[in-house]
Amino acid sequence: MTLATDRKTVGFIGLGIMGHSMAGHILAQGHDLRVFSRTRAKADDLLARGARWVDSPAALAAECDVVISIVGYPADVEQIYLSADGIVAHARRHAILIDMTTSSPGLARRIADAAAERGLTSLDAPVSGGEVGARDGTLAIMVGGDPVSFNAARPLFEAMGSKITHMGPAGAGQHTKMANQIAIASTMVAVCEALSYAKAAGLEQEKLLDAIGAGAASSFQLNVLGPKIAAGDFAPGFFVHHFVKDMSIALAEADRMKLNLPGLSLARGLYQKLIDGGFDEDGTQALYRVYSGMLGGGDAV
Amino acid sequence: MTLATDRKTVGFIGLGIMGHSMAGHILAQGHDLRVFSRTRAKADDLLARGARWVDSPAALAAECDVVISIVGYPADVEQIYLSADGIVAHARRHAILIDMTTSSPGLARRIADAAAERGLTSLDAPVSGGEVGARDGTLAIMVGGDPVSFNAARPLFEAMGSKITHMGPAGAGQHTKMANQIAIASTMVAVCEALSYAKAAGLEQEKLLDAIGAGAASSFQLNVLGPKIAAGDFAPGFFVHHFVKDMSIALAEADRMKLNLPGLSLARGLYQKLIDGGFDEDGTQALYRVYSGMLGGGDAV
Repeated sequence: MTLATDRKTVGFIGLGIMGHSMAGHILAQGHDLRVFSRTRAKADDLLARGARWVDSPAALAAECDVVISIVGYPADVEQIYLSADGIVAHARRHAILIDMTTSSPGLARRIADAAAERGLTSLDAPVSGGEVGARDGTLAIMVGGDPVSFNAARPLFEAMGSKITHMGPAGAGQHTKMANQIAIASTMVAVCEALSYAKAAGLEQEKLLDAIGAGAASSFQLNVLGPKIAAGDFAPGFFVHHFVKDMSIALAEADRMKLNLPGLSLARGLYQKLIDGGFDEDGTQALYRVYSGMLGGGDAV
Repeated sequence: MTLATDRKTVGFIGLGIMGHSMAGHILAQGHDLRVFSRTRAKADDLLARGARWVDSPAALAAECDVVISIVGYPADVEQIYLSADGIVAHARRHAILIDMTTSSPGLARRIADAAAERGLTSLDAPVSGGEVGARDGTLAIMVGGDPVSFNAARPLFEAMGSKITHMGPAGAGQHTKMANQIAIASTMVAVCEALSYAKAAGLEQEKLLDAIGAGAASSFQLNVLGPKIAAGDFAPGFFVHHFVKDMSIALAEADRMKLNLPGLSLARGLYQKLIDGGFDEDGTQALYRVYSGMLGGGDAV
């Protein structure tokens, strides 16, 4: 028997842009869905489709076989899992707790330890693929934690994603996501510097992207976000402030491991200028503003 | 009538890994090929296929309708084109001069000016795609210079490449190649930092590349060179010392344009450590050595 054929009671906490779509896929898979979110209105259509509202993480945990969360910041994760009125303290015995927030590997390990003390298991399972991946159920999901629980939860992951990888013990999912964000950070610097150079040199940015976009310079960031930069479109796919949160976690982990990542440090510093300029709700491609004097005061790098 | 149907006398200077394959494609297109290279032995098989050896750039220029060069460094380009016994001084009237070396945009403009004074035209046409692209005739070729000459030379470019773009006036081809190298530089930093973080965090690098390689972190550098890094394979596709030459040209141009490119500066500095460590003939993916204490003395970033 697997969850795919078994109707389970699944609790979902956090119905933001990502969580709302993901919870919908769980519901569509036929499970008994309980939901909680900071803003109740975000649950309206899920409730209309048969989900049930629960008034707190603790109440949700007390009713569910599996608890899934995707919230904003590590502090939120810590509160909903580890506080006295949190999930770990109130979950049913043998429940599987799955945090899909991009959060710190150390916190993932602390939740796993606290869960184990109560006969529970937890998985850290951050995602990549953004709003579109969440909507289409094509997220990449990177999982750390007990392999037995991973296998039990796999059908739920398959409802939400198309690339599901068990990376290792508790924290390994978060570490994988950190490596993903580290790879993105300097690649975005690369794209902004190439486009900024091109503009200064009098080249058409669109033509440049076409000329170099199929070779060794190609990247998701260049090919997908480069054209947005060339068009002056800084609307968010992924918010600057979320990316800065992720880079800060990665830098803290790197420090802890005595690892020097000068490219990541540089990227983090450049993005801070965007935050200082009030552009924290732009998309990550807005890093180009730092190079183009579009920070408001004509301030460049 | 175009060059594709017209047999032209084409001179080719520089028969290194790239030039040798490229000259072979010109020969295969049916042109009367004259060749010159620093090392005559590199011409042997082309001569066996009907090319003719010429003893100097000047002698070659005096016999050819089109002169193509791909040599090592801007100083080499300057010498073969602009010295008293160089190509510009000895070329036939109306000849088209095409330098495909990755070289400086400023030098490309000086050659164009000197050529124009003698009734010649020149194109700067650096390539990307490496050894494989040269062998298979699938290079990306980025061209600056007079559009009429570009159109006349297009059939020759089509023998060597599959993505041919006229980017603008003299120097625009080199500027495009610089933007390409700028995009590669920080992307390689991104890949090395992600893999270095993954290793420190206890993740399997191959598994990481598989987990993140299809999403927002994907790039040619991650997907093609990442697995080589994970396998400890630092054999050259593109030499460290050539990449450092290119980054130095790009930084000099950026300085001239009062453009600050901190990511490129950082990458240039990290690659300098490789050169200082004696790894200048490694492939560019050897940047990972800087992060992994593989510089010989256990020296890290």
